[in-house]
Amino acid sequence: MTSDLPVLLAAVSILSALHLALQAKRVGWSRMKHKIMPPTVTGPPEFERTFRAHQNSVEMYSVFLVVLWISGIFCSEVLASLGGLLYVVGREMYFTGYIRESKKRLPGFYLALCALLFLTVTATIGIIQAFLNKYLNTRLL
Amino acid sequence: MTSDLPVLLAAVSILSALHLALQAKRVGWSRMKHKIMPPTVTGPPEFERTFRAHQNSVEMYSVFLVVLWISGIFCSEVLASLGGLLYVVGREMYFTGYIRESKKRLPGFYLALCALLFLTVTATIGIIQAFLNKYLNTRLL
Amino acid sequence: MTSDLPVLLAAVSILSALHLALQAKRVGWSRMKHKIMPPTVTGPPEFERTFRAHQNSVEMYSVFLVVLWISGIFCSEVLASLGGLLYVVGREMYFTGYIRESKKRLPGFYLALCALLFLTVTATIGIIQAFLNKYLNTRLL
Repeated sequence: MTSDLPVLLAAVSILSALHLALQAKRVGWSRMKHKIMPPTVTGPPEFERTFRAHQNSVEMYSVFLVVLWISGIFCSEVLASLGGLLYVVGREMYFTGYIRESKKRLPGFYLALCALLFLTVTATIGIIQAFLNKYLNTRLL
Repeated sequence: MTSDLPVLLAAVSILSALHLALQAKRVGWSRMKHKIMPPTVTGPPEFERTFRAHQNSVEMYSVFLVVLWISGIFCSEVLASLGGLLYVVGREMYFTGYIRESKKRLPGFYLALCALLFLTVTATIGIIQAFLNKYLNTRLL
Repeated sequence: MTSDLPVLLAAVSILSALHLALQAKRVGWSRMKHKIMPPTVTGPPEFERTFRAHQNSVEMYSVFLVVLWISGIFCSEVLASLGGLLYVVGREMYFTGYIRESKKRLPGFYLALCALLFLTVTATIGIIQAFLNKYLNTRLL
C-alpha cells in the first residue's frame, strides 16, 4: 500500500522543514546572546543579520516546497530530491555566511537559486508533459 | 500513469510561486534603487511599501496553497484553478498598487480576498462531501 | 472515488489556515485600535506583540504543514490530525498570551512545539517504514 508513496520527496521535505526550524532556533540563541527580548527585532548588526537570514529562508520556503513537489511528482522524484538537497545546502551556506557578513550570504544564495531554477524547469517540463498527455492525449517525447 | 495528475492545480501553483519569487526580486530592485543594503528593512516610504507588499504576500501564501489544493482535490480542479488565477491577479494588483500608494493596495487586496473566500467555501463543501462519503457512507447531493 | 481522500488532514489544514488568516485579521484590528497605518510595523508594545505573534505563526506554518501531511500520509491520519488540532490550540494560546504579555506566549509556544515534535517523530517513523518497504522490500515491524 505504502510502496507508491514519494518517500524521497517526503524525506527531503522533513529535512528542509527541520532546517528551517533550526534557523528559528538560532535566531532565539542570538536573542539570548545579545539580550534582545521578543517582540524586539532590532539590535546589534549580527543579530539583525541572523534575524533577516531566517526571514529570507521563510520567504522562499513555500516557493521551494511547491517546485520540489511538482518537479518530483510530475517529472522525476530522484532528480527533484537531489535538487532539494542542493537547496538545503545552499540555504545553510546562506545562513552561516550572512551571520558573519552581509556579502557572505551570496554564494549560498546563488546555490539555492540554482537549485530553485532546476526544480522550476523540471517541474514545468513535467507539467507540460502531463498536460499534453491528459488533455491532448499526446506526448512531448 | 500521469494522466490522473492534477495538472491545472500544479500549473497555477507554479505560476503563483514564480509570482511570489518575482515580488522578492522587486524588493531587491527597490533596494538597489534606494541604496538600502540588507539586512536593513527601513528606508524611504516607497521602499518600505514595496517591502511590506512582499511580506504580506508571503504571510498569505501558505493559506492560499492550502485552500487551492483542498478545493481542487476535494471539489473541482477547474474551479479551484480559476480561483487560483484570480488570486494571483489580485496579488499583482495589490503589489503594484501598494508601491504607488498605501491606499491603492486595497482593490487588489479585496480581489485576492474574494478568491480566497471562494476557494475556502468550495474546499469546505468538498471536505463535507468527502467526510459524509467516507465515514457515513452517504452523500450531500 | 473520493472515499480514499485524507479528509481529516484536509479539515485540520483548512482549520489551521483559517486560524492563520484570523491572526492576520487581528493584526489589522490592532492597527485600527492603535491608529497605525500600513506599511508601519512599529508602535505601542501591544501592537508590536500582536504583529510579532502573527509573524511567528507565519514562520512556523510551513514547517507545520510539512510534518502534518507527511505524518498523516506515511504514518497515521488520525494521529496526525489530533497532533494538528493540538498545534492549532497551542498557536491560539500563544497568540492570545503574547498580546497580553511577552512571557505569556510561552505555554502556547511549548504546547505547539510538543505537537510539532510529535508530528515530526511520527512522520520520520512513517518515512523509514515506507523507505524499507519501497526500496529494501522489508518492514520495520
